[in-house]
Amino acid sequence: PFPVSTRHYSSARAADIRNGDFSALKVQQGRLMDTLHQTCSFGTGKRWGSGPTETGMSRLALSDADKQARDWFVETTEALGCKVTVDAMGNIFAVRPGRRGGPATFAGSHLDTQPSGGRYDGILGIQAGIEMLNVLRDHQVETEYPIGVVNWTNEEGARFPMSMSSSGVWAEDIPLEQAHNLQEVGGGTATMRSELERIGYLGSTPASYRSMPMAAHFELHIEQGPILETEQQKVGVVKGVQAYKWFTVDVNGRDAHTGTTPLKSRADAMLLAARLITHSHRLATAHGALASTGILTLSPGSTNTIPGHVRFTLDVRAPADATVEAMEADLKRDFAALAAGDDIDGLLAHSTPGKPLSVDFRTDFVSPATVFHPDCIAAVRASAEAVTGSAGLVRDMTSGAGHDSVYASRRCPTSMIFVPSKNGVSHNPEEYTSSEDCAIGAEVLLQSVLRYDRLRAA
Amino acid sequence: PFPVSTRHYSSARAADIRNGDFSALKVQQGRLMDTLHQTCSFGTGKRWGSGPTETGMSRLALSDADKQARDWFVETTEALGCKVTVDAMGNIFAVRPGRRGGPATFAGSHLDTQPSGGRYDGILGIQAGIEMLNVLRDHQVETEYPIGVVNWTNEEGARFPMSMSSSGVWAEDIPLEQAHNLQEVGGGTATMRSELERIGYLGSTPASYRSMPMAAHFELHIEQGPILETEQQKVGVVKGVQAYKWFTVDVNGRDAHTGTTPLKSRADAMLLAARLITHSHRLATAHGALASTGILTLSPGSTNTIPGHVRFTLDVRAPADATVEAMEADLKRDFAALAAGDDIDGLLAHSTPGKPLSVDFRTDFVSPATVFHPDCIAAVRASAEAVTGSAGLVRDMTSGAGHDSVYASRRCPTSMIFVPSKNGVSHNPEEYTSSEDCAIGAEVLLQSVLRYDRLRAA
Ligand SMILES: NC(=O)NCCC(=O)O
Ligand SMILES: NC(=O)NCCC(=O)O
Repeated sequence: PFPVSTRHYSSARAADIRNGDFSALKVQQGRLMDTLHQTCSFGTGKRWGSGPTETGMSRLALSDADKQARDWFVETTEALGCKVTVDAMGNIFAVRPGRRGGPATFAGSHLDTQPSGGRYDGILGIQAGIEMLNVLRDHQVETEYPIGVVNWTNEEGARFPMSMSSSGVWAEDIPLEQAHNLQEVGGGTATMRSELERIGYLGSTPASYRSMPMAAHFELHIEQGPILETEQQKVGVVKGVQAYKWFTVDVNGRDAHTGTTPLKSRADAMLLAARLITHSHRLATAHGALASTGILTLSPGSTNTIPGHVRFTLDVRAPADATVEAMEADLKRDFAALAAGDDIDGLLAHSTPGKPLSVDFRTDFVSPATVFHPDCIAAVRASAEAVTGSAGLVRDMTSGAGHDSVYASRRCPTSMIFVPSKNGVSHNPEEYTSSEDCAIGAEVLLQSVLRYDRLRAA
Repeated sequence: PFPVSTRHYSSARAADIRNGDFSALKVQQGRLMDTLHQTCSFGTGKRWGSGPTETGMSRLALSDADKQARDWFVETTEALGCKVTVDAMGNIFAVRPGRRGGPATFAGSHLDTQPSGGRYDGILGIQAGIEMLNVLRDHQVETEYPIGVVNWTNEEGARFPMSMSSSGVWAEDIPLEQAHNLQEVGGGTATMRSELERIGYLGSTPASYRSMPMAAHFELHIEQGPILETEQQKVGVVKGVQAYKWFTVDVNGRDAHTGTTPLKSRADAMLLAARLITHSHRLATAHGALASTGILTLSPGSTNTIPGHVRFTLDVRAPADATVEAMEADLKRDFAALAAGDDIDGLLAHSTPGKPLSVDFRTDFVSPATVFHPDCIAAVRASAEAVTGSAGLVRDMTSGAGHDSVYASRRCPTSMIFVPSKNGVSHNPEEYTSSEDCAIGAEVLLQSVLRYDRLRAA
């Protein structure tokens, strides 16, 4: 395995690499970061500081900016010797041949961002995959099996409201039709399918693990939380992902005049929505869960009309599936009670009860708690300890966020690598991870993939 | 006064009219209602029943549909012998000459509607003005002084968020520049001025009572509340209008990931906004006031991003100015306290306190309590009793809604006429007033204007 050219190495060094000492295969931090920041010109977002890279990203899935990033990805991976396949969800698989055939071991993540996101979420994982290809070429490393980099479509679920929608289709956990028909948030009429067609990324390969099998999936990602920074550690070995569900709640009242409708005659959908959102926070506290409303629209939307309809999203998370289920049951029960006029939040003791309203509760997306594969976890831990030189700088973690690795793990051995997020901030233009930490993460990714490749051969 | 053609009347009947018995001057209910419903093809809104007129209206100020209605108004009043003047706010004044010169006695209201409004709010007042011109022509009545019909621009304040903005400029209570620069709600870039230009209604006459003085202003309007219907009465003699203020509240938190940000680390602008809206309802109850949120936008607007910014409107009303002032003071004090983390709503006893946020409070519009003119009130009462034939079917009222008569009353004697609203519903497609009641209202309007004309001559 790993025949390394003698132009680069003494035979002793080549033997080290063959024996699993990858220390000669160094990620080039400058190249990695230059490339990352250059490609952030595709969909530059809000400025938050005065420095040239102190802007966030706004690269919604399947937007024009996403197309630019995709075109760049295809061109770059082809130039690095990969064969590129685009599937029916626009997932892009770039595969570099190995000594033998068979499914590739993949590094994967996503190039789409939140509407007001940062430069690292998803992007770092892809750029580290590209850097991996660069390092393998620099050192003329031939792997046992093919090595791939995959860019998954609409991981964020920000534009089309199912996170990880396209790895979900690949895993055959989300029906293709359902994903294709997802409509963009914010009232537009575009669907995933129409946008895939528009930007030229509706591929002909079926979106399925059967058509594009993977030997394993490794994903480098920023932590998006505060733990590594707080604990002054460098690398998280991600053993699993917490459970979450996304809901849409419709509150149906009655449009009425703000000036002529007494409080007691109102069916004020905005007032009830406000109570429901407040109550969801109370329930989350009681359950040790999270509840968040990120989208809310009301109609008709006029200063002097009491809204007859409000629609909002609820994102509910907890480490255990049972907690999310219990939250859901409580939310449904209590929302119906509040709509009917029961004073379970104690508000009506201090204010005027209005007329009953109705509440509809729809489940949009379910991501059960996920446990990653021990072989991949072991490869990440060994690589993290090798790269940082210290087990004390490495910790096991559970991810609070969902990732394409969740769906990948249903169909192949999978694990993830986390690097520190400044102040734990993510889904925010100010999201930041130092160049040093990005490079450490990229090197852990490279080694994890190579370790797994060796493991397969053994 | 009122020389009536002998082609129509015996000299005895003509003398009756001259002496203030207007019973011969009948409104034609069929013509009034046919015209009203025909012009509702300009901006037809939501269907709520199966009948041909069972749709609401969506004719936002200065939209294409509003232009169609305006063109119709100009053409129709000119055909009825009026001289039409358009001022710099797009207010359209149609004046029918009298025996003498001088300012006209006006019937006025508005042709714009809520985004999801009904067929009567504003529209009835204008159509009754047109019917008045029709009846005067039918009977060849020559009035002592000119008689006018005025269509005021953007009364609703639904598109450009100041109600009665253009009667406000006419009264010189709102600066022209401020009104011209009002931006449409919902994130568009159009301003009142740009839309006036676009649809060709930026008139050359200054928008001022000095350029277009009025002898008096009478306005027929639907009640928009339940009192007349509940009391089984037919006509409200409107003696004044309650006070109100419009505010915009900005809640500033921090965008963050819904899955990785613990409740205690959040500055969740949507959660705080929900608490503020709920609290405003509590305060309204305590003060005997009204508080309503009709518009709310959040950003960035993604299911899995905790919103860092929420903006919402607050419409606060009460009969007395002092109550509105007291509400405002309490809202400002309590909103700041809630933002800072004080548990004045008792929520935090049951839920996880997050980080402090900031709240900005802006006043957009102030309409102090208004008292109408005794002469106009008397003219309306006498006309209402004459038309209904019974003082028991007529009552004094205070308006909960604002009307252009508020600003008119600052510069000329003014009063209003209310007719019943089915179920008290308004700012809703299902807004309904029976044809019989519309015709009664129109006849009271006609008589009120003629009575005032006689009063001026006397
Ligand atoms: N990593 C990440 O932000 N993924 C988006 C899916 C989620 O909401 O957790
Ligand atoms: N009549 C009416 O609905 N006017 C709109 C102004 C207000 O908000 O009261």
